[in-house]
Amino acid sequence: MTDSPQSTPDAQAPDAPAPRGLSRRGLLGLAGAGVAGLGLGFAGDRAVSAAMASAAETAATAVYPFYGKHQAGILTPAQDRLHFAAFDVTDGTSRADLIELLQDWSVAAAAMTAGRDIGDYGAVSGPYDAPPEDTGEAVGLPASGLTITFGFGPSLFRTAAGADRFGLAARQPAELVDLPHFPGDMLDDARSGGDLCIQACANDPQIAVHAIRNLSRIAFGRAALRWSQLGFGRTSSTSTSQATPRNLFGFKDGTANIKAEEPAAATEHLWVGSTDGPAWLAGGSYLVARRIRMTIETWDRSSLREQERVIGRTKGEGAPLSGGTEFTEPDFEIAGRGDLPLIDEASHVRLAHPTQNDGIRILRRGYNFVDGNDSLGRLDAGLFFISFQRTPQSFSTVQLNLARHDAMNEYLKHVGSALFAVPPGAATGSYVGAPLFA
Amino acid sequence: MTDSPQSTPDAQAPDAPAPRGLSRRGLLGLAGAGVAGLGLGFAGDRAVSAAMASAAETAATAVYPFYGKHQAGILTPAQDRLHFAAFDVTDGTSRADLIELLQDWSVAAAAMTAGRDIGDYGAVSGPYDAPPEDTGEAVGLPASGLTITFGFGPSLFRTAAGADRFGLAARQPAELVDLPHFPGDMLDDARSGGDLCIQACANDPQIAVHAIRNLSRIAFGRAALRWSQLGFGRTSSTSTSQATPRNLFGFKDGTANIKAEEPAAATEHLWVGSTDGPAWLAGGSYLVARRIRMTIETWDRSSLREQERVIGRTKGEGAPLSGGTEFTEPDFEIAGRGDLPLIDEASHVRLAHPTQNDGIRILRRGYNFVDGNDSLGRLDAGLFFISFQRTPQSFSTVQLNLARHDAMNEYLKHVGSALFAVPPGAATGSYVGAPLFA
Repeated sequence: MTDSPQSTPDAQAPDAPAPRGLSRRGLLGLAGAGVAGLGLGFAGDRAVSAAMASAAETAATAVYPFYGKHQAGILTPAQDRLHFAAFDVTDGTSRADLIELLQDWSVAAAAMTAGRDIGDYGAVSGPYDAPPEDTGEAVGLPASGLTITFGFGPSLFRTAAGADRFGLAARQPAELVDLPHFPGDMLDDARSGGDLCIQACANDPQIAVHAIRNLSRIAFGRAALRWSQLGFGRTSSTSTSQATPRNLFGFKDGTANIKAEEPAAATEHLWVGSTDGPAWLAGGSYLVARRIRMTIETWDRSSLREQERVIGRTKGEGAPLSGGTEFTEPDFEIAGRGDLPLIDEASHVRLAHPTQNDGIRILRRGYNFVDGNDSLGRLDAGLFFISFQRTPQSFSTVQLNLARHDAMNEYLKHVGSALFAVPPGAATGSYVGAPLFA
Repeated sequence: MTDSPQSTPDAQAPDAPAPRGLSRRGLLGLAGAGVAGLGLGFAGDRAVSAAMASAAETAATAVYPFYGKHQAGILTPAQDRLHFAAFDVTDGTSRADLIELLQDWSVAAAAMTAGRDIGDYGAVSGPYDAPPEDTGEAVGLPASGLTITFGFGPSLFRTAAGADRFGLAARQPAELVDLPHFPGDMLDDARSGGDLCIQACANDPQIAVHAIRNLSRIAFGRAALRWSQLGFGRTSSTSTSQATPRNLFGFKDGTANIKAEEPAAATEHLWVGSTDGPAWLAGGSYLVARRIRMTIETWDRSSLREQERVIGRTKGEGAPLSGGTEFTEPDFEIAGRGDLPLIDEASHVRLAHPTQNDGIRILRRGYNFVDGNDSLGRLDAGLFFISFQRTPQSFSTVQLNLARHDAMNEYLKHVGSALFAVPPGAATGSYVGAPLFA
């Protein structure tokens, strides 16, 4: 199940040529109204070396195929950078337009993830009096492990007023509804929701930004950016070959994450099964995004004792306070002084643990963010939490437990939230989400 | 003059041990008021490998010494990531407090640039009932070429009302005054100015963010963040060994930059000379920062012809429109059709060129930024322009020329601006800016 570069067993055609060009509309989107005569084709190949001598070189040259059974960017070893974007479909866009948009996006995503530009950027043979097809800032850069993952929000199926904009209402999964309000939520509508989402992950931020920018551009007139988020320093590992990174609290994060090397866990907790819900979503998943602001200035002034109590692990090694090393299972029964448990009742590790949540596991794939500072001189920093799970109920169960009891809440504020159904991967020659429209 | 890793000829002690610990006040800053008993010392060494097998590995393991004739982060080969922060000194801070802050910052900067944490992060021997000295998120990461560069704004010497807060007014350089208002400026006060600045550059954003966060924390009660900016994908090369990168317009940028391999140019255009101004600034420079929002959606819809006319270079190769290759000198006299010059009168390359600006050259060291999007769904993206020059007049001359005539202005908006005097490097055992207070 591991998405190794160029060797994904689930992929139907690891590096297949793009089966079609952008629609005429997609090209007009690039140009704005009134410009014609753009050439088709994906001429602007960026150099991708086959040699992967070192891990760092692998980070630059890794190529993950776009087409396959599952979308890439889920079990793919977490890359170092993120650009996430939520879109709203523009008023007046028809069902056919929406399909064409998804087709255009798939073609462009297949090109960019293979390390190609989405067309001529001005150097090769593009017409001189039209805008270049590709914006050009990724020219000369390798694929950098880019993955592009698409999702569909509840509002794509049915508006808040109940309107069935695209004839999809009958196919809306019963579970694809807005997440419940959790205690303490301070959500900003301008950072929440969206009809569509794109998660672009890469080991070079310029590559991730280039992807979102060009996909936004292709969407011109059909869908518009609702909100977006950059992230860095993956906060979870999704493969046993990756060391556990540290979040902005300075602690190792995601130690107990679902890993690509656990196919049974992925089947049980990650992928929507063929009998779970609508057939079009089988092999897909649900993506939850939460923008979690950390009040790091307050955290930084709390004692090591308090920090470790809140997390339930040691700061250095990341071992549970019940003893052992990072990957030792926490023992929630062991008591210390005053018969109090060594791992606090309100600690994050306890409240998030499968044994405290009906055995639920989720795949975490979040990133740190720092977006300047607020007017009080505090960094606008935190965790852009992303998780994938077989059902949104998994997230909600754990999050309700955390929102009610987690000692960490004193240092957190959830300010953005979104849920998307992530369709299975596109078959070569098809487009992402095709079964939804079949 | 090249700042090669571990071999800077100007450095007095490439990897000298930190000569002193944080002041008691600095440690209290870490803890917030009322916490005492923190240990001194810089125990938490992060692994720094001497082996630099590949360029990518070099990016991770590069170490640039903090102490030296000039501050690092100017002629140092431009790293890939930036966290820039401007601070205001807090009311009630005395001259002695300010000196102590600069001492504490220097000690911490020397540690972090050497790949060390600024103290115990909770793993070694720190007291359990005090906050860890280091925030911990860089534990296990290499130095990543971190440089930390400090600057002093005009308001440090004299407030807008003319008050001499720190007894420095007599030492204010005549040229260190707010930049003039340029045509088209739409400056946001909340993104402009500042008493002090810190430029942290590294090849890993987590390292740059860790530096600014911990320096902010050390400043607690003495100076507070005024504004900050993250950047990625350096937009200039400062060494002939670096390929010219592309900016978010998709063009190669900074081709004609001052390079480390041009010591005569650095002496003439970059470093403040011993007879230029106040003696304390000799060997220093002036830093200009401008947050330049690019309206990339409009740019992306303009034709290749228009884009190349505006820049004055080809998009592919980056060659001047007068012919040749990237590093061919532009010929502004050659005319084409209708006797119009091949390089437009209003092109950026012409207006910024030394021959059009009394021979002025500056050292550009800017970064791309993307800070989400605005309410209209347009990316809040652009160039965080940073330049270093011997006198601010150099920047102002070129910028006035650009602001008046540059065809690129249609696609730009200057929304933030700041000027800082950058003192020379600190001598080992001393602190940055010491000659100012001598």
